[in-house]
Amino acid sequence: MALSLARSLPLARNFGAVSLVARGVWVGGRRWMSSTQSSLSDIEPSELQIRETPQPKKIPSLDTLKFGHTFTDHMLTVPWTQSAGWGTPEIIPYGPLSLDPSSTVLHYAQCLFEGMKAYRDVNGRVTLFRPELNMARMNRSAQRIALPTFNGEAFLELIKQLIRLDKEWIPQEKGHSLYIRPVLIGTQNTIGISPPDSALLYVICSPVGPYYPDGFKPVALHGTTEFVRATPGGTGAYKIGANYAPGVYPQKQAAQLGYVQNLWLYGPEHYLTEVGTMNLFVVFKRDDGSLELVTPPLDGMILPGVTRDSVLSLARSHASGELRLPGLTSNLVVSERSVTMKDVREAAQAGRLVEMFGTGTAAIISPVDKIGYEGQDVTIPVEADGMGPVSRAVWTELVGRQTGAIPSDWSVVVVE
Amino acid sequence: MALSLARSLPLARNFGAVSLVARGVWVGGRRWMSSTQSSLSDIEPSELQIRETPQPKKIPSLDTLKFGHTFTDHMLTVPWTQSAGWGTPEIIPYGPLSLDPSSTVLHYAQCLFEGMKAYRDVNGRVTLFRPELNMARMNRSAQRIALPTFNGEAFLELIKQLIRLDKEWIPQEKGHSLYIRPVLIGTQNTIGISPPDSALLYVICSPVGPYYPDGFKPVALHGTTEFVRATPGGTGAYKIGANYAPGVYPQKQAAQLGYVQNLWLYGPEHYLTEVGTMNLFVVFKRDDGSLELVTPPLDGMILPGVTRDSVLSLARSHASGELRLPGLTSNLVVSERSVTMKDVREAAQAGRLVEMFGTGTAAIISPVDKIGYEGQDVTIPVEADGMGPVSRAVWTELVGRQTGAIPSDWSVVVVE
Repeated sequence: MALSLARSLPLARNFGAVSLVARGVWVGGRRWMSSTQSSLSDIEPSELQIRETPQPKKIPSLDTLKFGHTFTDHMLTVPWTQSAGWGTPEIIPYGPLSLDPSSTVLHYAQCLFEGMKAYRDVNGRVTLFRPELNMARMNRSAQRIALPTFNGEAFLELIKQLIRLDKEWIPQEKGHSLYIRPVLIGTQNTIGISPPDSALLYVICSPVGPYYPDGFKPVALHGTTEFVRATPGGTGAYKIGANYAPGVYPQKQAAQLGYVQNLWLYGPEHYLTEVGTMNLFVVFKRDDGSLELVTPPLDGMILPGVTRDSVLSLARSHASGELRLPGLTSNLVVSERSVTMKDVREAAQAGRLVEMFGTGTAAIISPVDKIGYEGQDVTIPVEADGMGPVSRAVWTELVGRQTGAIPSDWSVVVVE
Repeated sequence: MALSLARSLPLARNFGAVSLVARGVWVGGRRWMSSTQSSLSDIEPSELQIRETPQPKKIPSLDTLKFGHTFTDHMLTVPWTQSAGWGTPEIIPYGPLSLDPSSTVLHYAQCLFEGMKAYRDVNGRVTLFRPELNMARMNRSAQRIALPTFNGEAFLELIKQLIRLDKEWIPQEKGHSLYIRPVLIGTQNTIGISPPDSALLYVICSPVGPYYPDGFKPVALHGTTEFVRATPGGTGAYKIGANYAPGVYPQKQAAQLGYVQNLWLYGPEHYLTEVGTMNLFVVFKRDDGSLELVTPPLDGMILPGVTRDSVLSLARSHASGELRLPGLTSNLVVSERSVTMKDVREAAQAGRLVEMFGTGTAAIISPVDKIGYEGQDVTIPVEADGMGPVSRAVWTELVGRQTGAIPSDWSVVVVE
């Protein structure tokens, strides 16, 4: 089955999933003897093997960076088998995976991922932002689609090692960071549908620039009712691949209508759920002059975003008086509650709608200035800098904490 | 970035997605000049390149066959790029794919598939069963998740070539066949979410034995209300990977409760939708002594199964008197309508429930003898051979047509 190297189809040489299994057995010599679930190996950072690239790539100049197009010199891999558990973690040169064409990830979407960022300041100090939340969510995703779970702390230790090795790839400039993408895929080589007997956990890293290099640019949303992103009893609360492919076509449709993203509305009431692949916040003015910051509750249809959680936490600290968000003079009320498009439209008409924004790891905060809904556009207030009073205040505090400029226990040091 | 061959991690050598793109450009020399969508290349069977394996595998003995565990000597691949369209089709030795770790299929479930069977009779004649339906459905799936569509007739021609090359792998014995798995994956190597700029269409084949080698064995279902398979506005009507991974955990839960598969119930009314990964049929006795064969309508939550369509078609021919299904003496009424668990339970209690079965390419017909629902078991009648009057009659006619024993225009000859 030797393939010519001159062939340019994506075919690998010499091994598929059988070798993955063989490896699991080999790696876990002692584990192989174990037969009970609990005695299977978990991820063991002390077993990490590092093989550095002999040919480091040229680090591209910042102005050429496009989100998710450039990857660093190395990647982290941890194989898993049902019989042996987690095998030897390795940091190796970034390069293609060899997958059998019957591999379950390619047929049944047995894949999930996370998104995190590492920041490097002018003194070379490198930090992560609340990474334990990503580890916990990744394990919840794994359980939901019957992929193997793992010790999140041990996996995070390995991710830190990868970041340390590739730290020169992390831009120091304002708004720049290293986007970290952990992925878990099912690699069983049979086309029956079941929990896979082998899997691969891996991490790749991509240096990224600011999402809005020229200041915030509010986006127009298409209030989408003909497609749904999530449903009660579905998988919308998990960061699994299956939630993403179905959203691409509706996004194309929205773009053809002149909108940037989908505003996913649910049910006959047209409840607001998420925007594109971000969580959603709305700010209403109340009769007493205070502002209500609202986001939909975690009812199974909402991804529990790290940025969502951070925005809520900062806003609640402001509301309780424990913290004063920079530049925010209003009192805040913070609500996790359902909001319908009728609520939003009526508030806009009555002048009680203050702002709306999406939150996520990639863009952090993404202001909204318009919603196309039932054939008409609902206009959302936006101030001169593209933001609103709450998003601006939260963004300033949040980015300060993410980059380490504002000290907080959310920032986890990777390189001192 | 050279990797030692001794390494048993799933890492490929020498090329990832960049080469896919390069190939598209190279293949389409003349196409490369074209810039409009309509002038991109479609699949061209006359360009097929065949490279036979120098080391044919030993064809395993029939009694060792396990569904989807064994694959034939060759596979078919057709690459696609946004700039050039479909590239050169190739039949090559079965072997692993090399995918960049950023490949979108591994992150966002940009994958879909089909399932078909080829039958070989004692004279060596090989047939497919209604393959044009699979081609049409595959194109609908592709469009729904923004993967490239293609000329289904041209692709089918290539599949036939693959079957002809590997025809010795098709068992001749009763109930045996060659399961054919076409797959389409997005292979863009960037971690943004969008329609991919490159994709790979491929086909692998697996010889399979009868699903029920020792006669029909009815299955017990768990009436599942805490998880949903599909929802209006969702993707349940498309054969995409994203519909499958989320079902594995609920199936494990059902198994732990002592049931074989999930009966997916929808909404507060607990509408019956599908069973596991099969379509669902229920038979009720009517006051006039006739039988009503019911299956849920294609309302966006139901996969339009080829077997489902064939069962409906045969039953309607029986109902109209155009065809007499073997052994079925009752008159039939055929309905595509919604059925609730309340309907089923009441009919069971009143002695009006005749039978229930799932349909799909793998098992063809799968009788049901029990549904665990709201803490109690609803018993479904099953006759001594594991079937019921309608399923037995339909199965006999259907399998006759599939294997070519009963001549019909549903059977498409691949090898005379």
